[in-house]
Amino acid sequence: MKYPNKINKQNTSFITHANRGMKLEALINSTNKYYNENNIALIFKRPTPVGIVDVSYQQNKKIINKAYFQEQSTLDYNGIYKGRYIDFDAKECASNTSFPLSNIHKHQTKHIKDVIDHQGISFLIIKLNTRIYYLDGNDYLSFINNNDRKSIPLSYFEEKGIEIKEKYNPDIDYLKAIDEIYFKGE
Amino acid sequence: MKYPNKINKQNTSFITHANRGMKLEALINSTNKYYNENNIALIFKRPTPVGIVDVSYQQNKKIINKAYFQEQSTLDYNGIYKGRYIDFDAKECASNTSFPLSNIHKHQTKHIKDVIDHQGISFLIIKLNTRIYYLDGNDYLSFINNNDRKSIPLSYFEEKGIEIKEKYNPDIDYLKAIDEIYFKGE
Repeated sequence: MKYPNKINKQNTSFITHANRGMKLEALINSTNKYYNENNIALIFKRPTPVGIVDVSYQQNKKIINKAYFQEQSTLDYNGIYKGRYIDFDAKECASNTSFPLSNIHKHQTKHIKDVIDHQGISFLIIKLNTRIYYLDGNDYLSFINNNDRKSIPLSYFEEKGIEIKEKYNPDIDYLKAIDEIYFKGE
Repeated sequence: MKYPNKINKQNTSFITHANRGMKLEALINSTNKYYNENNIALIFKRPTPVGIVDVSYQQNKKIINKAYFQEQSTLDYNGIYKGRYIDFDAKECASNTSFPLSNIHKHQTKHIKDVIDHQGISFLIIKLNTRIYYLDGNDYLSFINNNDRKSIPLSYFEEKGIEIKEKYNPDIDYLKAIDEIYFKGE
């Protein structure tokens, strides 16, 4: 005899514990889902743009027969929190001593600057091996404007960043860092 | 002998006049490009989400061999203007007497409400045959909450909407409508 409900429940619990190894993108997506469902913020991942080469029609439905992934012209996530415009990206690297700046493209740096110029909040969520940091856009720009280094050392994250600990519901509560920087005392 | 510059100039002028028949989406994209390049606002179209069925690799590059278009879970455009979060969609219909509400999906109506609840600005740009209207999210919600009608009549657009005339650079200056509603007297 099968007990599908029971089995599903066990599976869910197993998946929850397995979170520790989840990719950063999945953690952010689940966190955004939690924020959205609980009316805390309205933040979505922009779909990955796709360059379409060939399409055909099957029963009036468009089928893509050839396409390739394109680069996002902006950052990956945006939305609204406490009335403020939010725009950010997530990056991870294997190193636990420094974050290579080659991970961030020129047009992404420009986008961070543009968002801040328009009075929005822009930032990076960076996973250095197993530790996750919030790095505000202003601190990121200040680093690259004042350094010739090709990577941001861990010490800079420890000094300027805010560490985000993985937990459950939401998985990574990165809006806490925004509260600390932008809504302190409210 | 060829004069590529001269020919290009003529072509551009020809394209400009041909604007009149441009699809609404193209008009909005060119307008957003103008806003972005002139630091007026930072507004982008969210890429159309694609469900990937099959991929392969060619020289380390991912090629999509089968996929289909998915529905956007949000509205099509968002960004920031004068520090305010902006989120909207564009719709067109052939009729010049009313706009069928079947064009707007339930989850899109919910998204408009959510954005307003989070203190953002949400609206629709609706092209009724050849006339283009800005309809604020509040007026849209007020209509569907107070009517059993399956379409919004032209008279409602004339009363509550703001007509946007096509011009050149930008093609449709919809932020003027936002200025009128949200930034009057500034």
